[in-house]
Amino acid sequence: MSKESTVKTLTSIGRDVMDAILEGEFPSLHFPDRSTDNIVYDGVTNQFVLGDSSTTRDSSNLRHVRSFAQLIWVAYFAKKLTSAQRTSSLRDLYYSSEAYGVKFSNQAESDRIVTDLETLTGLARENFGIFPEERSSIFGDVRMRYTVSGYENQEVCLTASPDGFPIGRALMTAKPVDASAEIILAIESGGMFSRLIETGAWKRYQAVLIHLGGQPPRATRSLMRRLREELELPIFIFTDGDPWGMHIARVIIGGSANSAHLRGLAVPDAEWIGVTPSDIVNHSLPTEPMNNADLKRLDELLHDVRYAGPVWQDYIKAFRELRSKAEQQAFSRHGMDYVVDTYLKEKLP
Amino acid sequence: MSKESTVKTLTSIGRDVMDAILEGEFPSLHFPDRSTDNIVYDGVTNQFVLGDSSTTRDSSNLRHVRSFAQLIWVAYFAKKLTSAQRTSSLRDLYYSSEAYGVKFSNQAESDRIVTDLETLTGLARENFGIFPEERSSIFGDVRMRYTVSGYENQEVCLTASPDGFPIGRALMTAKPVDASAEIILAIESGGMFSRLIETGAWKRYQAVLIHLGGQPPRATRSLMRRLREELELPIFIFTDGDPWGMHIARVIIGGSANSAHLRGLAVPDAEWIGVTPSDIVNHSLPTEPMNNADLKRLDELLHDVRYAGPVWQDYIKAFRELRSKAEQQAFSRHGMDYVVDTYLKEKLP
Repeated sequence: MSKESTVKTLTSIGRDVMDAILEGEFPSLHFPDRSTDNIVYDGVTNQFVLGDSSTTRDSSNLRHVRSFAQLIWVAYFAKKLTSAQRTSSLRDLYYSSEAYGVKFSNQAESDRIVTDLETLTGLARENFGIFPEERSSIFGDVRMRYTVSGYENQEVCLTASPDGFPIGRALMTAKPVDASAEIILAIESGGMFSRLIETGAWKRYQAVLIHLGGQPPRATRSLMRRLREELELPIFIFTDGDPWGMHIARVIIGGSANSAHLRGLAVPDAEWIGVTPSDIVNHSLPTEPMNNADLKRLDELLHDVRYAGPVWQDYIKAFRELRSKAEQQAFSRHGMDYVVDTYLKEKLP
Repeated sequence: MSKESTVKTLTSIGRDVMDAILEGEFPSLHFPDRSTDNIVYDGVTNQFVLGDSSTTRDSSNLRHVRSFAQLIWVAYFAKKLTSAQRTSSLRDLYYSSEAYGVKFSNQAESDRIVTDLETLTGLARENFGIFPEERSSIFGDVRMRYTVSGYENQEVCLTASPDGFPIGRALMTAKPVDASAEIILAIESGGMFSRLIETGAWKRYQAVLIHLGGQPPRATRSLMRRLREELELPIFIFTDGDPWGMHIARVIIGGSANSAHLRGLAVPDAEWIGVTPSDIVNHSLPTEPMNNADLKRLDELLHDVRYAGPVWQDYIKAFRELRSKAEQQAFSRHGMDYVVDTYLKEKLP
């Protein structure tokens, strides 16, 4: 979402509120209800979305006044950040409220109001410059054109820093220009990310590499989605071989219940390449036994709507039979180059 | 340490072992003892160092054979990584050992042998390409010349990526060429790091910014030290106002017991600018009460040799009286620009 359309969306919220006041009415805000009952799985797009039930913040209702005012302030602050191309952490937003005499009991309350603004606008908070602390990284032969202040229209090739580029405000708002890369390979661990850079695997497989580092920040998911759409690069996801690694892929592909109120994050045709249960067996990987948390997680996923398809059900059943798990790094038992020369060769186009 | 001297150091270990074998003797290795009894505080350099007691790994001693062989393999693997300019995580090294039929009971054992190699050579494992997962970031007007494969002699200005550059293998082995920046400002939180980039504070204070993210990886400490020495940039450290933030600064300045076997990491003339206890009072920062862990930590630091000087003792006593703490972000209560326009103006040259 461009800076201009984000500001426009925020301005129109303010205008509606102003209009109501000028007409002598109490302004109110309406947005979809985020409660569990209203989170439904859309079998067509294969994503979680919000259902039809909605929430109202009515300034004429005494019980709503506080959260109504907080939401208006968060929208004001978001517009200020976006217009000035500034960023803030959620923590920082909480402290900033004091400068305006706006009261939040604690950060949990201000975080919730930020999510309200996301729901109201349908935009992820990163569009407003509100970022978490964690950052993913990216490396590969794709050119991006910056839009952040001081860098307008500067282009950068994402091979220029051999340690990778962090995905922060600047890359999130940059425009993909072109790529000689042909695929995106998203990787769970930093060690594997570095290995694929150093060995030149990124050239061999013509891949843009993305370091996820666990469940990736939404800025990363949004960038992956834009690279998929604007440069038509197919996405492959390579994680640890355990329920958690598999679920990182599943969330990138279909979203999570927590982000059911947001569009523009899921990449439905991304593909999990492994480490699958059969990879563990076929490549004789060193494994660790699954612990109780792993097994419990598998049981949960077995009944999770996102895993209803036969392919995912088979993965879960195979993990349950195997009762063991393996990390991406486990391929090193066959030598440092095995993962590139043998495993990825088998898995990538 | 350059690739060439690192390889030379490792080669000479192998040569000594070979020489002993060719002379019909059992080879042995000698290095300083790392046990707590032998870690001493050097009041002259204000650093932890190892004392005179030493350890022997004697291949003629049955109880030493296993760890002797493991150490030789780790040195071999380190040389292989260094020569090929490749990197490995500690986890990956553990798995790689299986490819060579070398046995470690678990990763804790292989980690310990890596530390043995550090002690034997006096070099941090990052010199051998063995990195942790965490990365710090850097941004500012300093030119670096890469040495990693594929990037030899390419220069990069560390303002080229507005989200910052991760400090990995490539930057760690790059040579500082020149800088128009005049100071280094190391910052605990990612939010503050982004803010100082976006607001142009880096230009105003002619600062190279480093995002520490808690206790920084040793690659980051080593880069700070080299920028201090080779470009003569003084270092200022800006952390949260609590015992943990203060200790991040203290470790950068004087090292830790865990790295007592290493040289080239400490920056004795770096300065902690805050958030100090008096900053909390003078800037009326919103605070949180210290919890038991905070107070216990203060008691420990009070008797820690590194805090023996009057300045540090005063900080600890003031924190104990205050019994509260404040984060870097807390300055936002006075508006988003207060930290740059008022606080840093007061603290930086």
